[in-house]
Amino acid sequence: MDIRSLSSSHRHPQDAPYVHKVGLPPKQNLFSEFKATVKETFFADDPLRPFKDQPSSKKFILCVQAIFPIFEWGRSYNFAKFRGDLIAGLTIASLCIPQDIAYAKLANLDPQYGLYTSFVPPLIYAFMGSSRDIAIGPVAVVSLLLGTLLQNEIDPVGNATEYRRLAFTATFFAGITQVTLGFFRLGFLIDFLSHAAVVGFMGGAAITISLQQLKGFLGIKKFTKKTDIVSVMHSVFASAHHGWNWQTIVIGVSFLSFLLVAKYIGKKNKKFFWVPAIGPLISVVLSTFFVYITRADKQGVQIVKHIHKGINPPSVNQIYFSGDYLLKGARIGIVAGMIALTEAIAIGRTFAAMKDYQLDGNKEMVALGTMNVVGSMTSCYVATGSFSRSAVNYMAGCQTAVSNIVMATVVFFTLKFLTPLFKYTPNAILAAIIISAVISLIDFDAAYLIWKIDKFDFVACMGAFFGVVFVSVEIGLLIAVSISFAKILLQVTRPRTAILGNLPRTTVYRNILQYPEAAKVPGVLIVRVDSAIYFSNSNYIKERILRWLRDEDELVNKSGQTKIQFLIVEMSPVTDIDTSGIHAMEELFRSLQKREIQLILANPGPAVIDKLHASGSAQLIGEDKIFLTVADAVASCCPKSVGEV
Amino acid sequence: MDIRSLSSSHRHPQDAPYVHKVGLPPKQNLFSEFKATVKETFFADDPLRPFKDQPSSKKFILCVQAIFPIFEWGRSYNFAKFRGDLIAGLTIASLCIPQDIAYAKLANLDPQYGLYTSFVPPLIYAFMGSSRDIAIGPVAVVSLLLGTLLQNEIDPVGNATEYRRLAFTATFFAGITQVTLGFFRLGFLIDFLSHAAVVGFMGGAAITISLQQLKGFLGIKKFTKKTDIVSVMHSVFASAHHGWNWQTIVIGVSFLSFLLVAKYIGKKNKKFFWVPAIGPLISVVLSTFFVYITRADKQGVQIVKHIHKGINPPSVNQIYFSGDYLLKGARIGIVAGMIALTEAIAIGRTFAAMKDYQLDGNKEMVALGTMNVVGSMTSCYVATGSFSRSAVNYMAGCQTAVSNIVMATVVFFTLKFLTPLFKYTPNAILAAIIISAVISLIDFDAAYLIWKIDKFDFVACMGAFFGVVFVSVEIGLLIAVSISFAKILLQVTRPRTAILGNLPRTTVYRNILQYPEAAKVPGVLIVRVDSAIYFSNSNYIKERILRWLRDEDELVNKSGQTKIQFLIVEMSPVTDIDTSGIHAMEELFRSLQKREIQLILANPGPAVIDKLHASGSAQLIGEDKIFLTVADAVASCCPKSVGEV
Repeated sequence: MDIRSLSSSHRHPQDAPYVHKVGLPPKQNLFSEFKATVKETFFADDPLRPFKDQPSSKKFILCVQAIFPIFEWGRSYNFAKFRGDLIAGLTIASLCIPQDIAYAKLANLDPQYGLYTSFVPPLIYAFMGSSRDIAIGPVAVVSLLLGTLLQNEIDPVGNATEYRRLAFTATFFAGITQVTLGFFRLGFLIDFLSHAAVVGFMGGAAITISLQQLKGFLGIKKFTKKTDIVSVMHSVFASAHHGWNWQTIVIGVSFLSFLLVAKYIGKKNKKFFWVPAIGPLISVVLSTFFVYITRADKQGVQIVKHIHKGINPPSVNQIYFSGDYLLKGARIGIVAGMIALTEAIAIGRTFAAMKDYQLDGNKEMVALGTMNVVGSMTSCYVATGSFSRSAVNYMAGCQTAVSNIVMATVVFFTLKFLTPLFKYTPNAILAAIIISAVISLIDFDAAYLIWKIDKFDFVACMGAFFGVVFVSVEIGLLIAVSISFAKILLQVTRPRTAILGNLPRTTVYRNILQYPEAAKVPGVLIVRVDSAIYFSNSNYIKERILRWLRDEDELVNKSGQTKIQFLIVEMSPVTDIDTSGIHAMEELFRSLQKREIQLILANPGPAVIDKLHASGSAQLIGEDKIFLTVADAVASCCPKSVGEV
Repeated sequence: MDIRSLSSSHRHPQDAPYVHKVGLPPKQNLFSEFKATVKETFFADDPLRPFKDQPSSKKFILCVQAIFPIFEWGRSYNFAKFRGDLIAGLTIASLCIPQDIAYAKLANLDPQYGLYTSFVPPLIYAFMGSSRDIAIGPVAVVSLLLGTLLQNEIDPVGNATEYRRLAFTATFFAGITQVTLGFFRLGFLIDFLSHAAVVGFMGGAAITISLQQLKGFLGIKKFTKKTDIVSVMHSVFASAHHGWNWQTIVIGVSFLSFLLVAKYIGKKNKKFFWVPAIGPLISVVLSTFFVYITRADKQGVQIVKHIHKGINPPSVNQIYFSGDYLLKGARIGIVAGMIALTEAIAIGRTFAAMKDYQLDGNKEMVALGTMNVVGSMTSCYVATGSFSRSAVNYMAGCQTAVSNIVMATVVFFTLKFLTPLFKYTPNAILAAIIISAVISLIDFDAAYLIWKIDKFDFVACMGAFFGVVFVSVEIGLLIAVSISFAKILLQVTRPRTAILGNLPRTTVYRNILQYPEAAKVPGVLIVRVDSAIYFSNSNYIKERILRWLRDEDELVNKSGQTKIQFLIVEMSPVTDIDTSGIHAMEELFRSLQKREIQLILANPGPAVIDKLHASGSAQLIGEDKIFLTVADAVASCCPKSVGEV
């Protein structure tokens, strides 16, 4: 390998510390460089590793197993695992049935669509997904998001058929979006919604959802279509005239208290995790029985009434493949699909980390997308992983995705035979179930931790929260995304720079703000640039360095110290430089030349030294002015000032 | 100041190298931290520095001078400077008059609008601008951009009045955009168009403009509205049937050759810079005379015909302040305004660097925006700095912006008295002038340098170039912006990581790819993360580190070396970390714990150590596992492996 010598030949006669030369990495041809970049960007987790050095037949089997992981873990399936999955599946089924009916109302759909969505998608997921703990089905936030976005376009009450068709169209495009992102390995785009923004958004969504439940809770008939807190409160107090239905309130409040107490018990003692899990089902059974006995529906208590019997009818012909609604459905689908992905991937990663197995994010996305595409053709709406149900699944001892198959089977029987039993279920119960479910989305601990760690993150969190609560779900989401992007923008355009000083009795140079004992070297200004120098920040970096120089000159003039004659730029963090950065370095060199200050570079990385040579800047600045370490650079300027070791 | 001790107490008995503790910076309160961030982001060039410690009266004067810099440099104006400005002003006036008439045609406007745009905007700029060398007026690329975008909305031939109104509306909003960006100090947004993309876009625009001139050059009557090379060539060869007007071609070719030769002379010998400067005017005079004498217009040579006499009429009432065209004008204005800004700021910075004076980019934007807003109300269209005229201005010895005032005065006289002289000017001459002017926008040297330095930049350059030439100006611009953003995205989501090894006989640890002599330490894996750890890359970084570990484990297993027991993360380039980054570090710690590997951190910066403490991660990892340098960290793992100095 070819290493050009670039360092000075300055050596101490006595100690003879070995002065290494700055290494020039071997020239990589364009194609291998491009290949390496593509690999790192899109295939960072090396998904084709298991395929290496395998015979063709094995490769085929591996390929099938990659697309349908069930063929991989299904081979080692045994009765012990089935037992765990059976118990977990039954537990989450008891939780999901009342939630499905409730969440379908959030999405302004008839209750059976929630049950449909807990039947087909989990089955598809069990075949194609890789997470062992995730529980698939409709979730509160996505249902709310869909309901809000869809009802902006079509009135769900007046135009129910078209509303449903648009819902299926949106689900179809949500699935297409998810498959596309996963297939083209663009999964990293999901990471662009920062954790803090998601916490704020979820908390705001939880408040919004709870406020929506006041309609069912208080038995209000005329309710605003808007979701922000001001409009909802206005509706609530406006209807106070007509009087709220006290029977509904009694039922609602009592069972809500019951559910919240059950939740608390489950949280306090992990052994009682099953208590909040069966709480909703018990509430439904008891309240239905109670309403049936007392015929409370005749006294104004609103009930579910009719749930269509039978399993998912096909709905391929109901999806809009052309016309105005195609675009609208696509837009809504893309947004809903990405939010659904964020939830599912977060859940998948959390449990994979806890149980210490690897999860291929992009493969998961393909599985989730396929399940939604197929779901849209079988009368389901957007399904994803549910935090609460996945946690219950995990606690109940699930082993594989078979728990989802068990749950889907229970839902199947419910759809086939048990739907008439829900006729007298009061809406207030569904409202109470939803409220008790979303309460846990408001994560005070996470918000407090964010406040302690990073104030900017906290601003993002609060911005998203208040945006959702006081304006609308879409605006809150927009705020969350915008603040996330603004943070990246800030990182990219205003990188940090620092003045370095020598830590006494070492050859180590550190930030003088962090290490007050670090002493500046007289006549030398050492600046560290903490970022790659690209077009987005090259001008700022150049001007910032010149400003550091001006500040130092002022200080030096005031205190009568040695005038600055050398400017050392410590380039360890500068991982890369592009043409704009090269221009900025050359302009800096010329600016300093005019002021009779020598520019010295310390520790450029491989990419940087390569480009400095290619552009001729290294020759311009002087190859003997580029050193391996700051200590070497300082030694070349002022031999007596180097700290001894 | 409070520094908590965090390092180990490991000391060599003999040498006793002083092991420094990792410094914890003093806690800054939230407000001062926020203030510092805002200052660095928006006021990076410290514009209020001159206002410090000044009495109120002085502050007022400084304020007026800041808004109208003419009151600052006007005080030291003398005859010597005026002489330089007079010569420069007359030179650029001779260049700008023919160009104005030509560029107005590019924008599908009548010729006098080009002259108007060289009258009012330069005057406004002279009062408010800070660049001493820039020459203001219409430019080829912005004229083309405006012409293309406007004619997509309104037909300039059939609906000339409304077209003109939309042009003024667009100019108004271009000015508003520029003022807003400058006022809110958002000027750094201009930096987001990478230099390479601009080179490609300008080259493509030059080709497109030259192709458009074939209409005037060959005397073609029926010409395509599209700008891409395929459509233009189709038009050209389709009209070959009707025959091209040979007289026009003769005039055009001869004078184009004359202009190109003049340009060549000026480039070869800097003393003859005035030759290409007066070339266009001479061509206009000669050709007008020639056509007048021979009455060539009767033989099919198209001429300018009529230029409306008199100075700028007011046009405030012609701007659309409501209705459909308001939005269209705003959209076009924003795009044109930002492209105009990019050109002007680039020119300003270039000459400021050459003459070594400071330029406040944001202040410049306010000046440019004001000039366009006022221009839109006085029948001008978007004006900005012109590369070619500014270079001539510089060479001719301009001293201040008074050269623009001189040029505007000449244009004034032209508008008042001289417009009838242009009646017989053939269109072919204007075409030849435009072609010779834009040829220099095709910068082969810059493109070659980009190819040598940074291949990704070259892709951006070529993408923009081919987009403009083969599709349209808007698409080329979109490609340029998209590729610029993709590069930032890549930088942000896929930061570099490197394995470090010890350079023999030093305590220096460097990238083993760049320094093949760097030796890995047995049992220890040292990874350097080359970026701040944010939500956009925290998951990738964690998984990449674990993958480095897996690769190392494989290598170690094959070769029978010591199993990895320590993972040191060198965090010098990690300038900051947010909540997602903290989570990733904690997950990494737990993952390593399961594999019985100790996580050690080396050299965290001030922001990082601060947040590690605030979140409790420092306690989780162990405060004695955080070291100042990699050498200290390695010494703590394996005392015998540290390189001697």
